[in-house]
Amino acid sequence: MEPSLATASIAKHLQSVLPATGREALATSVLPALLDSVAAVAVALRAAHHVALAGGTNAFGDDQLNVDVVAENLVREALARCPTVATASSEEDPVERSVSNVSAVSSAHSSEVYTVGFDPLDGSSIILPNWTVGTIAGVWDGATALGSRPADAQVAAVLGVYGPRTTAIVALRVPGQRQQPLCLGLGYTDASATTPGRWNIVHANVSLASPTPPTTRYFAPANARAAAEDSNYRDLVLHYVTNKYTLRYSGGLVPDLVHMLTKGHGIYLSPVTAASKAKLRRLYELCPVALVLECAGGKAVDPVTGASVLATPLAHTDERGGLLCGTAEEVDKAVEWLGRETT
Amino acid sequence: MEPSLATASIAKHLQSVLPATGREALATSVLPALLDSVAAVAVALRAAHHVALAGGTNAFGDDQLNVDVVAENLVREALARCPTVATASSEEDPVERSVSNVSAVSSAHSSEVYTVGFDPLDGSSIILPNWTVGTIAGVWDGATALGSRPADAQVAAVLGVYGPRTTAIVALRVPGQRQQPLCLGLGYTDASATTPGRWNIVHANVSLASPTPPTTRYFAPANARAAAEDSNYRDLVLHYVTNKYTLRYSGGLVPDLVHMLTKGHGIYLSPVTAASKAKLRRLYELCPVALVLECAGGKAVDPVTGASVLATPLAHTDERGGLLCGTAEEVDKAVEWLGRETT
Repeated sequence: MEPSLATASIAKHLQSVLPATGREALATSVLPALLDSVAAVAVALRAAHHVALAGGTNAFGDDQLNVDVVAENLVREALARCPTVATASSEEDPVERSVSNVSAVSSAHSSEVYTVGFDPLDGSSIILPNWTVGTIAGVWDGATALGSRPADAQVAAVLGVYGPRTTAIVALRVPGQRQQPLCLGLGYTDASATTPGRWNIVHANVSLASPTPPTTRYFAPANARAAAEDSNYRDLVLHYVTNKYTLRYSGGLVPDLVHMLTKGHGIYLSPVTAASKAKLRRLYELCPVALVLECAGGKAVDPVTGASVLATPLAHTDERGGLLCGTAEEVDKAVEWLGRETT
Repeated sequence: MEPSLATASIAKHLQSVLPATGREALATSVLPALLDSVAAVAVALRAAHHVALAGGTNAFGDDQLNVDVVAENLVREALARCPTVATASSEEDPVERSVSNVSAVSSAHSSEVYTVGFDPLDGSSIILPNWTVGTIAGVWDGATALGSRPADAQVAAVLGVYGPRTTAIVALRVPGQRQQPLCLGLGYTDASATTPGRWNIVHANVSLASPTPPTTRYFAPANARAAAEDSNYRDLVLHYVTNKYTLRYSGGLVPDLVHMLTKGHGIYLSPVTAASKAKLRRLYELCPVALVLECAGGKAVDPVTGASVLATPLAHTDERGGLLCGTAEEVDKAVEWLGRETT
């Protein structure tokens, strides 16, 4: 499949940074299709004033659909045009199923076979107040992600960001090679910015590893209610306050992480307590964002073990965990702090 | 001036709720012009990937303008078409100047004369990461807001919200009458949602005064670094954490307040300490949002005196203050808490 006009220049760039052979479909079909779906979701959200959340009963436009379902369908439609995508699963439908209209492997004429795990619309609690929300997708080698170690098998991730603009972060890590993430912006073909045009590269090297100390330090304490039960977490939040870190916490995983990637500094904390169970899904949320964070020079670890989110093989599609991620030294400090013996 | 097609139905609604005489221009010219400018700013932001902040040096598109200036110009152009708007001033240009191309009062053929105070693009720190930002505008009776008591003279306020959708909150309080705020959504004329169409009413009665206790309680601690100096503020934040309020704090005044208005509950805190001076401007930020909050049945008060933001006459255009606002009982509790004697 040829990339669309909207993604042609991005496909060309991806081809230039990926190995010369064996990743053609990733560069020219799979990632462009995901970017096309991000552009389509942005358009769908723009008019969705009568928003219904998953399971809700309000009308979405004339079609009585909710926005989660709309986004889910748009991503699946885009993936169905990719012969190398054997299967896909999502937070809305967490079973790895065939998405292609064509016989995947046979028509690919290549060694490339992928599965995609995605969260079509992350941040449902902040859709109604019109806050920035996002799409999360991870691309894995093979027809299934199950049993694979994400650090080996997950080769790319895309974060779509729906705010005043439509932006995306693309991270690549095929075996033996790690690229710094790209920040893309959806352009428009006319002066009034009404017709979606092509994706352009806004920043070619998104980085959390600045050689100079940050002028402002940011913290995003997710699941802050867990601090009511976990005195270590409460003390750590107080530590940030006392040391005058700046608070930015939207409650949407994509905007919260894109904030730190844009500012070049940050710590995002989603610890797990007895009463506040792990909510973030490894396949649809944790692994893709961890790939982006690591490619940017940051860390994304399990709050209990301190190990990389990407280190442990994926057991099942609904596997969940906590998350500490951001600037490496901040993550190390938070792991140490949260692991202290409480008296 | 006739309202544009985009705002014709809103103008009709505003006419139906305002007094039959003496407010025609407010309903059919001034508020529609502000809504037109919100729609125009939304389009301008959508393609502004190479964002420069005020005073910055990056290019904004081809015009080498920054987004604050673009928004400022769009609001002023819209107001210049309103014969009854004698003057306007803004955070970018805080001097009350004539904006009309026509002689304001003489051509109005009416008793209506207004000044508009506005913040064209609030939330500059979160524009780069593509978070929701907003426009704030207050409409005052007379050719100047100086010396007037906002509770008497400020008759309307508009909050423009630039997120995945474009939305707006409109509040009206002409003397002797108070309306609950309207939540509007910008519609589109085509199925692909690319051509801005007309504003539609999404909620006719935005309310913070639910008769039933909220299922989820929200807090937004602005200026959280002040808690490093103010033990009352720190204890109050801990109180919210311990009592399992949900944290939502974007750092943008418009999205933070629209969040509570949409959810029907919330407390926003921006206290002032010796080291953290008051930053919010009364004319461009505090008074318009206070009008919206009070019309919705909430409160917006000075953190020190506990008095309504709208009670004290406006001394000058750059006057600043702190802010506690939201659900009335939460605001009362916060005033009491922050005013405690410290040991």
